[in-house]
Amino acid sequence: MKENCFYCEDGEKRRSLMIEICKLEVSTVYLNKDQKHKGRCVLKFNEHKTDFSALTPEENAAFARDLRKLACVLNKLYCPDKINYAVYGDLVPHLHVHVVPKYKDALQWGGPFTDDIEKKLLTPNEYEIEVSRIRKELES
Amino acid sequence: MKENCFYCEDGEKRRSLMIEICKLEVSTVYLNKDQKHKGRCVLKFNEHKTDFSALTPEENAAFARDLRKLACVLNKLYCPDKINYAVYGDLVPHLHVHVVPKYKDALQWGGPFTDDIEKKLLTPNEYEIEVSRIRKELES
Repeated sequence: MKENCFYCEDGEKRRSLMIEICKLEVSTVYLNKDQKHKGRCVLKFNEHKTDFSALTPEENAAFARDLRKLACVLNKLYCPDKINYAVYGDLVPHLHVHVVPKYKDALQWGGPFTDDIEKKLLTPNEYEIEVSRIRKELES
Repeated sequence: MKENCFYCEDGEKRRSLMIEICKLEVSTVYLNKDQKHKGRCVLKFNEHKTDFSALTPEENAAFARDLRKLACVLNKLYCPDKINYAVYGDLVPHLHVHVVPKYKDALQWGGPFTDDIEKKLLTPNEYEIEVSRIRKELES
């Protein structure tokens, strides 16, 4: 638990950006509130580590299993044409992966996804539908 | 081996962009020719698979080991303040990870790395020095 890390604090700031779906082996899956890429999630390594090199081999293996599991579920539910994955976090170094389904000829297809354009927010009910279906598949 | 995939073809197009450093368990490490982020590499899954969900659990585990190994080496050699990782490939779907060391208060710190700015190319001798030191660490 690191101070001034919103992933560790897991409070208002985190909730303003994403909705918890469920926990996996060593990570937590969130639905990104900005759903301009349908199905976009964040996978957070639970402990405060800042790079793959800081994980033990066992943690690294478990995180990779969690990531693959999420990839399988998003492919099944959303049928994207590609999934983009990114670990940035220069300023928020807690290890987390942006998992971003991309759709052919749709938003930012063929280029990196960016967050500098208008967000697409859903209604509480719409969020709940997406969270529930992803959770159901992850837990099955 | 997939037709019209420059990672599978492993020819002129691939060589125009990156220099092979060495092979790991299930992947190949390349030095990115554009070195505006010092130490930038690409890790390519050797077989033509297009997503983590398409890997077997064993392939996924091995690829994660390879990625962690490369992360450890780049941290040791270049001491970046953070490493960014990205799997994009909407148009070049062969599974590959951009491994991009970032440096505090330097180029694109705090934002996603992009390739839409001028490249920084090295001399053949400079490339050879970087390739050799990374290879030496990866093989040790």
